[in-house]
Amino acid sequence: MSESEYKKLTDEEVKAQMGEVDGWTIKEGKLHKTIEFTTFNEAFGFMTRAAMEIEKINHHPEWSNVYNRVVINLVTHDVGGLSNYDFKLAKILNGLVPKN
Amino acid sequence: MSESEYKKLTDEEVKAQMGEVDGWTIKEGKLHKTIEFTTFNEAFGFMTRAAMEIEKINHHPEWSNVYNRVVINLVTHDVGGLSNYDFKLAKILNGLVPKN
Amino acid sequence: MSESEYKKLTDEEVKAQMGEVDGWTIKEGKLHKTIEFTTFNEAFGFMTRAAMEIEKINHHPEWSNVYNRVVINLVTHDVGGLSNYDFKLAKILNGLVPKN
Amino acid sequence: MSESEYKKLTDEEVKAQMGEVDGWTIKEGKLHKTIEFTTFNEAFGFMTRAAMEIEKINHHPEWSNVYNRVVINLVTHDVGGLSNYDFKLAKILNGLVPKN
Repeated sequence: MSESEYKKLTDEEVKAQMGEVDGWTIKEGKLHKTIEFTTFNEAFGFMTRAAMEIEKINHHPEWSNVYNRVVINLVTHDVGGLSNYDFKLAKILNGLVPKN
Repeated sequence: MSESEYKKLTDEEVKAQMGEVDGWTIKEGKLHKTIEFTTFNEAFGFMTRAAMEIEKINHHPEWSNVYNRVVINLVTHDVGGLSNYDFKLAKILNGLVPKN
Repeated sequence: MSESEYKKLTDEEVKAQMGEVDGWTIKEGKLHKTIEFTTFNEAFGFMTRAAMEIEKINHHPEWSNVYNRVVINLVTHDVGGLSNYDFKLAKILNGLVPKN
Repeated sequence: MSESEYKKLTDEEVKAQMGEVDGWTIKEGKLHKTIEFTTFNEAFGFMTRAAMEIEKINHHPEWSNVYNRVVINLVTHDVGGLSNYDFKLAKILNGLVPKN
C-alpha cells in the first residue's frame, strides 16, 4: 500500500511541518508533547481513543502517564529520525484532545 | 460502607430526579438514554471513561453500541426498580459526553 | 484497496464458514455469539481489545454488555446479509477471548 | 474510610512483601516491573483493565508503553516512599497479565 510508506524528513521538511502540529516540540530528536488533562479518567479516555488510531495506522508512540498527565514522544526508528508518520500521528492525536 | 446502600425510589422521587438528568427518559421501567457520537472512536472513548466510573461505584448498566451510537438502560435489579444509584450513574455519564 | 471489498456470502458459503468460528451461531440472519467473562473488568478488557481490531478493519458490530456478559451480532448492511467481513471479524474476536 | 489509609512501609516490611509480588523489583526507591506482551493490542488491553482497578483504589502508577511493552513504577509520594497501596496495586496488576 503506497500511502503507508515511511519517508524520513529533512530538517527543512521537519521545520515546515512544525507549524501544523500545535503544542509539539522537538526534544532529543523526537516529536514531543506533554498533555495535561483534568483527571486520570480523562487522560486514559484520550489514551484509549489514541490507541485505536495508533493501531489503525500501525505507528506506535513512546508514551507515559502519571495521573492526569500524558507525555508522548514520536520517532520512526526504521528511518533513523522523524518521518511523515510522526507528523501524521501528531495531528491525529491533537484532534483527540478535548477542548475545555 | 453506608453511602453505597441502594434505596428504591418512589414514583414521586423518580419524577423529582428526572429534572436533573438531561436527555434521559423512563422506558420499560428503566432509565434510558441514546447518545449519538460523531464516530465509533468517540463512542468507544466515552464507553471507556464510563467503564472506569461504573467500576468505581460498582453499578453496571445494560448498554449497547452500534458504530457511533450508544444506548444505555439503567435499573437496579436488587431493589426491583429504580434506585438512587441509577440516577447517580446517569449524572456521571452525562458528565462524560463531549460538548460539541 | 481490493482486499477490503465486501462480498455477500451465499448460504453454502455461510455454512462452510460456520465450522471455522467456534461458538457462533446464525440468529435472525446475523452471526451471533454470547460470551461470558468472569467480571465486568474482563468483559470490558475484551471489548477494548476488540474495539482496536474493529477500527482497523473498519467493520463494526452490534454489541451489548451487561456486567460480565457481552453479546455480539455481526451483519453487513451494505450487502444485505452476511459477508466475508463478518466471518473475518468473528475469527479475530475469538482470538481475543482469554483462555481460562 | 479506614481501609484506604496509606501506611509507609519500613524496609523490613518491604522485604517481607517482595515475596508476594512476582516479577517486581525495587528500582530507585520505587516498585518496578516491565511486562512484555505479544502485541500493542494485548499491552493496551492490559492497560485498560489496569486503569479500571487503578481508579477503583484511587492509587495511580507512573507507567509507560512502547508497542508491546509496559513499564510500571509504583511509589506513594504522600508518604515519601513505598506504602501498602503500592503492593496492593502490584498484586492486582499481576492478576491482570494474561497467562500465555
